[in-house]
Amino acid sequence: MQFETISETQISKTKQLFTVHSPLIHCMTNDVVQTFTANILLAIGCSPAMVIEPEEAEQFAAIADGVLINVGTLTSDRQSAMRLAVYSARHAQKPWVLDPVAVGTLQFRTQFCRELLKLNPTAIRGNASEIMALAGSSQGGRGVDSLNTPNDALPAAQALAREVNTMIVISGEVDYVTDGHRTIAITGGHPIMTRVVGTGCGLSAAVTAACALPGDRLLNIANTCAIMKQAGEIAKRNCRGTGSFIPEFLDALSQ
Amino acid sequence: MQFETISETQISKTKQLFTVHSPLIHCMTNDVVQTFTANILLAIGCSPAMVIEPEEAEQFAAIADGVLINVGTLTSDRQSAMRLAVYSARHAQKPWVLDPVAVGTLQFRTQFCRELLKLNPTAIRGNASEIMALAGSSQGGRGVDSLNTPNDALPAAQALAREVNTMIVISGEVDYVTDGHRTIAITGGHPIMTRVVGTGCGLSAAVTAACALPGDRLLNIANTCAIMKQAGEIAKRNCRGTGSFIPEFLDALSQ
Amino acid sequence: MQFETISETQISKTKQLFTVHSPLIHCMTNDVVQTFTANILLAIGCSPAMVIEPEEAEQFAAIADGVLINVGTLTSDRQSAMRLAVYSARHAQKPWVLDPVAVGTLQFRTQFCRELLKLNPTAIRGNASEIMALAGSSQGGRGVDSLNTPNDALPAAQALAREVNTMIVISGEVDYVTDGHRTIAITGGHPIMTRVVGTGCGLSAAVTAACALPGDRLLNIANTCAIMKQAGEIAKRNCRGTGSFIPEFLDALSQ
Repeated sequence: MQFETISETQISKTKQLFTVHSPLIHCMTNDVVQTFTANILLAIGCSPAMVIEPEEAEQFAAIADGVLINVGTLTSDRQSAMRLAVYSARHAQKPWVLDPVAVGTLQFRTQFCRELLKLNPTAIRGNASEIMALAGSSQGGRGVDSLNTPNDALPAAQALAREVNTMIVISGEVDYVTDGHRTIAITGGHPIMTRVVGTGCGLSAAVTAACALPGDRLLNIANTCAIMKQAGEIAKRNCRGTGSFIPEFLDALSQ
Repeated sequence: MQFETISETQISKTKQLFTVHSPLIHCMTNDVVQTFTANILLAIGCSPAMVIEPEEAEQFAAIADGVLINVGTLTSDRQSAMRLAVYSARHAQKPWVLDPVAVGTLQFRTQFCRELLKLNPTAIRGNASEIMALAGSSQGGRGVDSLNTPNDALPAAQALAREVNTMIVISGEVDYVTDGHRTIAITGGHPIMTRVVGTGCGLSAAVTAACALPGDRLLNIANTCAIMKQAGEIAKRNCRGTGSFIPEFLDALSQ
Repeated sequence: MQFETISETQISKTKQLFTVHSPLIHCMTNDVVQTFTANILLAIGCSPAMVIEPEEAEQFAAIADGVLINVGTLTSDRQSAMRLAVYSARHAQKPWVLDPVAVGTLQFRTQFCRELLKLNPTAIRGNASEIMALAGSSQGGRGVDSLNTPNDALPAAQALAREVNTMIVISGEVDYVTDGHRTIAITGGHPIMTRVVGTGCGLSAAVTAACALPGDRLLNIANTCAIMKQAGEIAKRNCRGTGSFIPEFLDALSQ
């Protein structure tokens, strides 16, 4: 299979777009990654805001430049608020992104993710097991960990992207970004990124911001994956363990 | 206009009061800044506790030395618990502080903040847009970001402070602390502080602790603003980006 | 009284068991320590997942290798989900651990902790005041801070451990781990650990993981206490305040 690749020039251009446009991102995300997600968006020059009360979520989704829906610690209250936010974003023609954390194994979120799929998310970001479970081709991972490789998930991702008219990011050792017609492969990064909570969820937030940028959306998303992978490599070189990886990663993103 | 200023000796005295009295602060704050808020209070020698269940919040507000109400991720459940905590703090004559995050734009929290205003918060801490929106003189900021300068907000803050009999902190490039009669100006700090989530919310928690100290309350609040700004300057000098700013900031506060 | 002690060889063995078995830990914990808890588990080689919706919590507790119940920011919704998770863990014969944060003073959580006691937690981890309050021999601490020493709490802990057939960790200057018959004492650590939010809650998560390991459970729990204390000592030596303590602590755990 033939994949598009990306150049350093293109990556730099997306970096610059983040700081010039500074998209305001409405994050409806899980309890575990709230701070890290906000700091990742701030580091790349975007403006995060977490708004969760149903009426406010509906109102804010139309004001913000993009909405992130991450089902990591879904509850029925949050589900109601997320639904309103998605309807509102669609009505206001704002992009919204689904992060289907641990979909497959857990029934409540799996049902909700399938419901959201019908509302045509602008983009979806998950690990290989999550994307396969969302596409109905596997049972999901072990908790939040993937049991499959991005290569395993690519055919299902491409088919699902065409079916739902969305862009899908499978993140892992190689990230694939596909709309079902074009597929971009992004190499790099480091396994230590899976030993720090929130790097995947943070990528989903950054992908939401990428969807709010002008220009080639698939390319902006791919460049965002590259920005995160490169920051992970720099942080890995400078850190002495998973603890110092965190500030080093944000430092690399913010420079 | 003539502003009071503060001396290093005064700032040191407030620092010492924090460690001697170690006020126990009941934080009802947003999902994004819980950890950072707790670590900021611990770093300056105070004792944080987050208690949110309505009955417990009511009970704990009377036990703690001060209560922080931050509406960043307000929900109707939290609103009920916050109401009970405020009633309880007032009844027990304990100080309580309002942080009206993103007030103005979002209706649910705006209505709640106006309700709380009538209950005479001991102090209020917000950015310029938030203070202006609370006073009814603007529509609020862009998400959690201010679109105004502290100078823009000062007349409205002074009028509101007199009307509600409270002390208001407008934080920004210059912080102003006013009770409507006296106004203290605090310079310093660094713009990087706005690129790390929770520095403003953390200041509100520290201001709550300042309200629990003996002595000149307006001065203790102003000194607390200075303590945070100085820690921000030290952290900026020692950090290599927004990531390492965070541990450096807490290190500076804890030394 | 005669206490067992542990050797470096034993501690190393438990460390190795964490990385070999990588237990999947279902954390139902408080709002303040979610990220730090996840990063602590990841640092020692375990796999954390936070699942809180009642149906999902019930389902996941049977899949995971252990369940942590921490009542720090208990609400009635979370109480319902925790109950289902505990029933499910018991039914599936999976270990579950109670962290009775601030039990004693606050009535809602105190009642719930007493209810959970009757369900025979595999282990309980608290500070001295919490363990004494749980055993009914004191009124609890000051917020989340202990007003007693581990020595004060040991007789009550030993009696409670026998009564409920559980293992109890009293953490403090010395940690005691007891099943009411054997008692292991773990020295070390540093007071700075009480000035960073979440070291105690993180220990409870690690203790949950220890309960999921093969071998002598009491010894694995004690070794886990030692692993945390030793990481605290290393971090204290390398840090410049409470801020840099956090990444240094995780670095020490992850190495």
